[in-house]
Amino acid sequence: MPIKPEVLKIKPSAKSRLFLIEEMQLRFSNGVERTYERLASRGHGAVMMIPVDADGNLLLIREYAGGINDYTLSLPKGAIDSGESMFEAADRELKEEVGFGAKRIEFLKELTTAPNYMGHKLQALVLRDLYPCSLEGDEPEPLEVVKWPLSDIDNLVMNPEFTEGRAIAGLYLAFSYIQKNP
Amino acid sequence: MPIKPEVLKIKPSAKSRLFLIEEMQLRFSNGVERTYERLASRGHGAVMMIPVDADGNLLLIREYAGGINDYTLSLPKGAIDSGESMFEAADRELKEEVGFGAKRIEFLKELTTAPNYMGHKLQALVLRDLYPCSLEGDEPEPLEVVKWPLSDIDNLVMNPEFTEGRAIAGLYLAFSYIQKNP
Repeated sequence: MPIKPEVLKIKPSAKSRLFLIEEMQLRFSNGVERTYERLASRGHGAVMMIPVDADGNLLLIREYAGGINDYTLSLPKGAIDSGESMFEAADRELKEEVGFGAKRIEFLKELTTAPNYMGHKLQALVLRDLYPCSLEGDEPEPLEVVKWPLSDIDNLVMNPEFTEGRAIAGLYLAFSYIQKNP
Repeated sequence: MPIKPEVLKIKPSAKSRLFLIEEMQLRFSNGVERTYERLASRGHGAVMMIPVDADGNLLLIREYAGGINDYTLSLPKGAIDSGESMFEAADRELKEEVGFGAKRIEFLKELTTAPNYMGHKLQALVLRDLYPCSLEGDEPEPLEVVKWPLSDIDNLVMNPEFTEGRAIAGLYLAFSYIQKNP
């Protein structure tokens, strides 16, 4: 493994209500110095849920995505609250966004988003043994829940409405996991 | 498809050397108003390359990632320059980062990064018929190139050093594509 660059300095370079941008002064092990910028991760992390019902259907959501100013089909995701485990957060967010709780929740992998310039990590989890249960969330409008057979992910990942890299990764990881852990 | 929220106002809320954060005032079709923040996408877009050599090996890179302050194993990526096509950008970036050109470049899918709060899109491409060719890049240190058999992606995606959601998505999409288009 290469020797990590020395971090000579980190300082905030811009800040908004939700985002913090940091400037890093780095000296690489070959002596080269560079200034990098990164979007810092704040809060307690986040979860992405891959919920699969008893009939083998994925429960997806159709949600307005401000970053691209359009509706997208994706997996439900949410922030981990202070004091919550990733499993508790996944169960709560599923109740808020999809209207189901899960009796069986399994961790798949910690995903990074764009590690070259973002600190954000996302815990991917498979949720099964679902039962109807709704909690009030903070969505501005109800999210549409879309069922999609897990056996048909090849068509889902090529659907032009399903574009989020992390969600495509989560689907394939879940498919492989479920094959081995039915 | 739901009716998109009306964008009442968009204004910059923070700006750094590389990043622009925007505040959006939205009115959803049910009348609910919300203020969203998003990281705007700047420049001409970006490419992610899935290079596969004649022996069926993926060519990965090990690179320092400032966002998580660690080295990561991932797919080569880069920005599209002004006036360049995604194919030209992929070929140039492969020469800069991996030391190969590609005679066969095929488009897989446009991926979003975190569409709820980022505008960033990434064009995923498969590169084959590789030949040695290096171009000077802007990396602070040479990138390590790591070969990994495409047939063994199940182990790669579970490798703790390989975490980027978009790259895991790209691998699976490429594997599926190459099966159908050898």
